[in-house]
Amino acid sequence: MKKFNVAIIGATGMVGRTFLSILKERNFPISDLRLLASARSKGQKMQFGTEEMEVRELTSDSLEDIDIALFSAGGSISQKYAPVAAEAGATVIDNSSAWRMHDEVPLVVPEVNPHALTPNNGIIANPNCSTIQMVVPLRPLHEAAGLKRLVVSTYQAVSGKGKNAVEEMISQTEQLSVGGLVTPQEFPHQIAFNALPHIDVFLEDGYTKEEQKMVNETRKIMEIPGLPVSATCVRVAVRTGHCVSLNAEFEASITPSQARRALSGFPGIVVMDDPAKDSYPTPVFAEGRDEVFVGRIRKDPSVENGLNLWIVSDNLRKGAALNTVQIAELLAENWHD
Amino acid sequence: MKKFNVAIIGATGMVGRTFLSILKERNFPISDLRLLASARSKGQKMQFGTEEMEVRELTSDSLEDIDIALFSAGGSISQKYAPVAAEAGATVIDNSSAWRMHDEVPLVVPEVNPHALTPNNGIIANPNCSTIQMVVPLRPLHEAAGLKRLVVSTYQAVSGKGKNAVEEMISQTEQLSVGGLVTPQEFPHQIAFNALPHIDVFLEDGYTKEEQKMVNETRKIMEIPGLPVSATCVRVAVRTGHCVSLNAEFEASITPSQARRALSGFPGIVVMDDPAKDSYPTPVFAEGRDEVFVGRIRKDPSVENGLNLWIVSDNLRKGAALNTVQIAELLAENWHD
Repeated sequence: MKKFNVAIIGATGMVGRTFLSILKERNFPISDLRLLASARSKGQKMQFGTEEMEVRELTSDSLEDIDIALFSAGGSISQKYAPVAAEAGATVIDNSSAWRMHDEVPLVVPEVNPHALTPNNGIIANPNCSTIQMVVPLRPLHEAAGLKRLVVSTYQAVSGKGKNAVEEMISQTEQLSVGGLVTPQEFPHQIAFNALPHIDVFLEDGYTKEEQKMVNETRKIMEIPGLPVSATCVRVAVRTGHCVSLNAEFEASITPSQARRALSGFPGIVVMDDPAKDSYPTPVFAEGRDEVFVGRIRKDPSVENGLNLWIVSDNLRKGAALNTVQIAELLAENWHD
Repeated sequence: MKKFNVAIIGATGMVGRTFLSILKERNFPISDLRLLASARSKGQKMQFGTEEMEVRELTSDSLEDIDIALFSAGGSISQKYAPVAAEAGATVIDNSSAWRMHDEVPLVVPEVNPHALTPNNGIIANPNCSTIQMVVPLRPLHEAAGLKRLVVSTYQAVSGKGKNAVEEMISQTEQLSVGGLVTPQEFPHQIAFNALPHIDVFLEDGYTKEEQKMVNETRKIMEIPGLPVSATCVRVAVRTGHCVSLNAEFEASITPSQARRALSGFPGIVVMDDPAKDSYPTPVFAEGRDEVFVGRIRKDPSVENGLNLWIVSDNLRKGAALNTVQIAELLAENWHD
């Protein structure tokens, strides 16, 4: 079987580190692994299984002779270097939002729209974290009853904003426990013991870019261009694990038991829905796991053909690194030399 | 002006303590103040302004000669003792859910439905915390455009569950910061750095009683019997301050600026909605304040005449003790000897 030259761009970040663990866990066929990051991280040592590796500086030259380049170093780095890597012959899988809505760029969740994946070469985009965990259950529900409208509120973990954001939450928590004052830096307001309805920047219409991503990316992945979606995205004091409170309206009737059956039979989903046993997913439970967990599946009597669902997943794994590696696996299966 | 004999039942709880501060702050006309609680708290000293008072044990006899009895000691205490107090001549204002849906019992938010208040004597119910902070902004919006359907997700603070719940969150936070394990007691799962879609008990249809309260109490207070309401109630790692992510559909068109105007002119509401300045309400901001804060007011383009709003308030104050004292003030103004 072919082995691949793989580059990780943004190797020292939270998603970058998760790439390393997941590539090792899933035994991805690697010939050569290159860890790239900003000049600041140059020379840093990282573990890949038992192997110690050194981080190199990201430059245009560093992207030569790569088969698959996994980008997670922010939008402006992807904007600049993804085309460089692609032109040098790599297939780029990009975690940033830079390329997601380009017509030529496939936006892929392997369980949901594997057919959108073009063969190797070029740029492939990994969707937004909250969007990924929502579209996985939407796929079987849409097949069963036809999506009509979605109203979404999220509960998003701080690790979605990176290492400094996690450290800020932890240090604020400690400062507050000794009666100290906190000085927000990563977030506009205190994040410890708080909830901020503000993820990514605000747009002209009052929505945040995160909310806009959930609308546009859901439509693109589900291939329903005009799907009515309303989103409110909120950062909560959770380390890792995003939650989505989803109110979904369907064209046809679908009962909670039909929904449970459709969801249980779908790859990548675990239904956790036994209220009598206090069984429903939470972020702490989902952290470090691969699946999308769905619970609190209820009929919404306030509308014809409505369901409420509570969807939880690890935002660094299925919401980012795992989904990217799954895309790489699909590519590897269909590779043309 | 008449002064009143006031009893606080559940004086040592979080809401009970907040009653004491708010009665003092607002200079409620008190002749005699009686602090009642379970036998366990008998003899405990509490401050009322500069005065030190002793807690007495709640018994049927302890409720004699009271004008206004403020109950916040749980549903079963209210079930048993509210009728005793009322029969002994007191007007009861009850914070539990025991009496809220009784046909004969007014369920009152003074800014929203003061006309529902019957004169003194009998039982008056104080609504559920999340419901109170939602119906205050709903009133002017309903007058402006007519409510058609509500989809709600909440972010509720642990103090809504009482002192032990707050202590459990704090002690779990400390244990986790030194790498310890946590043993949930008040909550079915770890609450620190987590989110639990579970408040109050589960019902047959998969909804929680908290979610059912938001549906039924909203209809009763707003006097719209069949109003379609869909609720998902979630406990988050916040000390005090509940948030409601509200998607509202109206009969008539209403723009965000019209909504902002209607809300700004309504008593008890502060609009905090300037994204360019990172201005929106959060629980940490709302804690200790009296108003209902509304922000993130946006047109919902996924439905005809839709708005999204983010509503935050102190669950111990407007969500409980303040609303109760405001009801007592209304009663006092219209008292018949």
